[in-house]
Amino acid sequence: MSQSSLFERHKNTLEEGIRASRTREYWTAYPENPSPHVYGENASAEGEAAFKSYLNKAFDIDQAATIGAIGSEKSPYGFDLGITYPKVDVDGLIMHVESIRGDWAQTSVETRTGICLEILSRINKRSFEIGYAVMHTTGQAFMMAFQAGGPHAQDRGLEAVVYAYEDMKRTPAVARWEKPQGKRDPIVMEKHFSIVPRGIGLVIGCSTFPTWNSYPGLFASLVTGNAVIVKPHPGAILPAAISVKICRDVLKEEGFDPNIVTLATDSANEPLTKILALRPEVKLIDFTGSTSFGDWLENNARQALVYTEKAGVNCVIIDSTDSFRAMTSNLAFTLSLYSGQMCTTPQNIFIPKGGIETDEGHKSFDEVVAGLAGAVDKLHSDEGRACAILGAIQSEATLNRIKKYGAQDNVVLQSRAVPMAGFDKATIQTPLILKAVDKTSHNSELFGPISFVVPTENTQDSLKIVEDSVKKQGAISFGIYSTSEDVLGQAEGVACRAGVAVSFNLTGGVYVNQTAAFSDFHATGCNPAANAALSDTAFVSNRYRVVQSRKHI
Amino acid sequence: MSQSSLFERHKNTLEEGIRASRTREYWTAYPENPSPHVYGENASAEGEAAFKSYLNKAFDIDQAATIGAIGSEKSPYGFDLGITYPKVDVDGLIMHVESIRGDWAQTSVETRTGICLEILSRINKRSFEIGYAVMHTTGQAFMMAFQAGGPHAQDRGLEAVVYAYEDMKRTPAVARWEKPQGKRDPIVMEKHFSIVPRGIGLVIGCSTFPTWNSYPGLFASLVTGNAVIVKPHPGAILPAAISVKICRDVLKEEGFDPNIVTLATDSANEPLTKILALRPEVKLIDFTGSTSFGDWLENNARQALVYTEKAGVNCVIIDSTDSFRAMTSNLAFTLSLYSGQMCTTPQNIFIPKGGIETDEGHKSFDEVVAGLAGAVDKLHSDEGRACAILGAIQSEATLNRIKKYGAQDNVVLQSRAVPMAGFDKATIQTPLILKAVDKTSHNSELFGPISFVVPTENTQDSLKIVEDSVKKQGAISFGIYSTSEDVLGQAEGVACRAGVAVSFNLTGGVYVNQTAAFSDFHATGCNPAANAALSDTAFVSNRYRVVQSRKHI
Repeated sequence: MSQSSLFERHKNTLEEGIRASRTREYWTAYPENPSPHVYGENASAEGEAAFKSYLNKAFDIDQAATIGAIGSEKSPYGFDLGITYPKVDVDGLIMHVESIRGDWAQTSVETRTGICLEILSRINKRSFEIGYAVMHTTGQAFMMAFQAGGPHAQDRGLEAVVYAYEDMKRTPAVARWEKPQGKRDPIVMEKHFSIVPRGIGLVIGCSTFPTWNSYPGLFASLVTGNAVIVKPHPGAILPAAISVKICRDVLKEEGFDPNIVTLATDSANEPLTKILALRPEVKLIDFTGSTSFGDWLENNARQALVYTEKAGVNCVIIDSTDSFRAMTSNLAFTLSLYSGQMCTTPQNIFIPKGGIETDEGHKSFDEVVAGLAGAVDKLHSDEGRACAILGAIQSEATLNRIKKYGAQDNVVLQSRAVPMAGFDKATIQTPLILKAVDKTSHNSELFGPISFVVPTENTQDSLKIVEDSVKKQGAISFGIYSTSEDVLGQAEGVACRAGVAVSFNLTGGVYVNQTAAFSDFHATGCNPAANAALSDTAFVSNRYRVVQSRKHI
Repeated sequence: MSQSSLFERHKNTLEEGIRASRTREYWTAYPENPSPHVYGENASAEGEAAFKSYLNKAFDIDQAATIGAIGSEKSPYGFDLGITYPKVDVDGLIMHVESIRGDWAQTSVETRTGICLEILSRINKRSFEIGYAVMHTTGQAFMMAFQAGGPHAQDRGLEAVVYAYEDMKRTPAVARWEKPQGKRDPIVMEKHFSIVPRGIGLVIGCSTFPTWNSYPGLFASLVTGNAVIVKPHPGAILPAAISVKICRDVLKEEGFDPNIVTLATDSANEPLTKILALRPEVKLIDFTGSTSFGDWLENNARQALVYTEKAGVNCVIIDSTDSFRAMTSNLAFTLSLYSGQMCTTPQNIFIPKGGIETDEGHKSFDEVVAGLAGAVDKLHSDEGRACAILGAIQSEATLNRIKKYGAQDNVVLQSRAVPMAGFDKATIQTPLILKAVDKTSHNSELFGPISFVVPTENTQDSLKIVEDSVKKQGAISFGIYSTSEDVLGQAEGVACRAGVAVSFNLTGGVYVNQTAAFSDFHATGCNPAANAALSDTAFVSNRYRVVQSRKHI
């Protein structure tokens, strides 16, 4: 298919995306409903079969600078994937990518945009296959793996394309400049403006959201003309590998060297991330992961622009509610979803020690906690439903953390293992809730299903603590329950000063740990949890520069 | 005047600026012609009188945290200005600014934009006064001081406001989000989006363009809601002080604390820049100056986003010309303008050792050099005209550099002092041209009127050397003369790969060291000479963040 046709084919999606990003109204390009009516009668079975076809063999990707095979992913549902991926020679890979990236850098914005949109469209068609791959690397339950790993991730990728396209097109390719000279002839110049990418973008994936957290950086760097090396987490390679292969397929069909997008797989024993991150050719880095490694990148990869999403401590304040049951249900689901293995899951829940006013009358601190614990318990009373919400625990470290904190004497609700039909080795755990014992016990991120109820003097105290916590520890989400407009206004002030998004009184089908592309920004870029937001102009506009020429005509 | 009225008053200017920045056609908001018909019959005399009224007294600016007086500016035209400015207590200043900046951060984008546009409009009306202040601090001849220090600088300030306004308005203040739920009622949320500034912006001025190089950062940070501290170069305080005072006047009239914009004057003996730059409250830094200090800022002021314009080595390639006389005239003016004290003045002129083809027939290397030297000589044959082009040498260091290099045995055209009527102590020097003696003699920036003619094997060699030079030493401008479209195409390739703007065959009234706001970008941000461009989206979009709230309705 001709390159301009790809742009034309997807132009409507692009324009709708631009409109949505500017109105922030509800819009999605990729249906989140895994219904046969949407994705096809056999889509689920075919997707599962495609996933199974990858197991216990080498992943078929014909990539430059391959020097062996590597890979040892394990499904959190209790089996080895047995897939190997190319082991790359970093010098050879970078040298090759540098040698071939010029064509991509120099082609038109429309060509690159059309190709990125075609890639996203093909990724969308393979949402079931990618969903199973996400499920069996991250431990997400299938529905979430499908939605967050599929359409929602694709929306975030598209969002980055939308922002980058609009910003690149802000400058015309050609301009005629005519300066009046009084009675003399004007000075007339023709000026050409070229979009020049920075070089190679490195996308460092995480183990829990290998597509959702990687697509924004991948597509932002790619559409602006950079080559991209994807370095997945050793525990979640397959979703990245499938995505990279789709990128390569489309690039090749359209006449570009597929090595514009490559996969650099490593292992815990032979890590490549630092080596790649310090290469002078790597000019952009997108990272999701720990604060310590994010800080290392920011401090050491000085040749690159580094976009990081690190750890934070998310907070919820309970001041009062006119729907106690709905509030506790909403929070119970929030704490349970993917066993809290999300950078947006609340960890600390601040409740006045004197209790709160509710539609069921005054509730003491202990009654509020009991209500929350009861709602969590009730949510998981059915094992099938529990598994479908909780998913499996991705890492040994998180399992050990649950054990360690579960052994403390401040447990409010104990975590318990849930058996899963068909996957008897799956590591599924209900949330653990603790009561904060001092002012610091809960002040650093405890990744996974571990949260604290924290007694405070009153809501003013809660607000003060949260503002301080977000400024110091960072946060991506912040929720508050209150029937007082005044308190909500104060919370908005806290949110603005500390730089965190705030959700008011979530009691229905929206959860504080969820954001919708094109409407909600993910992170703000102005507290320690992240130095960028997904996605805004700042996320894309420095990934390329403009070089101009001018001449008299 | 009400705040919304200021926005309405200047809305047309804003909209015209947006249009111009998108078409890159010729447009200016502030006339560069210092004619009485434009600026008023007595504008020049009144401006000069206003300038003289500042001399030999304390500058009247009522600023927080003042603990004394400081200042020892000298006019490069041979006299002491004798002006003192407030010496600030840094702790006190920053504490005060932090305590009062909230109102400015929280007011509407329109209010801030209206105020910035009113400030620019008032600065424009005082272009003569500022012009004299620029002349007698930088040494620029009056016409240039008026134009570059006045309307052109104002255009660059406006350009930053235009980009920031458009980007801030990309996100709506309020959105209604309505997610369909099949047959059930949709989920409906109201979302609020707040523009949140980063904190305090520090603008570090330079001695040669105290307004032109400072206004972009000043207005970009200010319009996005940050407070701004202007730290001028100790040698060029007055133009910054007048500008800051105008900012404060308008802020105060509009009901804001004037300390949203403050002046932090220092001296070579008691420098403040590093102290200010490392303050945790300083989140944005705009710097123009030496590579060593720019690098220091980038490496040490890690709490801030740092926008730097540092040193570079600008290049011109001569391949061939169909107008030898016009080419040499254009280059002679380019090298002479403000005695080469511009970050855009070419330093190295590459000429094939075998000579070039011209409209006057083949010219040997020496003939080309003689043509250029002759054109420079001729340009300065009249002393009055010479002074009006050259201006005065701003610093002792530049004067010493001219002496040192003028004493070498590779001089092609010697620099000579030019006397100026009425200013018998003015330090005015014609350009010094040297022949490169080896591959390195000319490879670092020699600020001021010192340039090299560099013999090369041929134009291919010249192109290769320039690409390498720009990548390593950085450059803000690049010019080439050639009658071959093929060679010009290759030069455009060099420009894109090295990341520098290129001008082809300038023979008329446009010079390689000049850029026009709204059409030409100043610097690219992708070679060592600068990490940002004036102005584009990347220059403004990270100076603020978006914080959202959401609730069900």
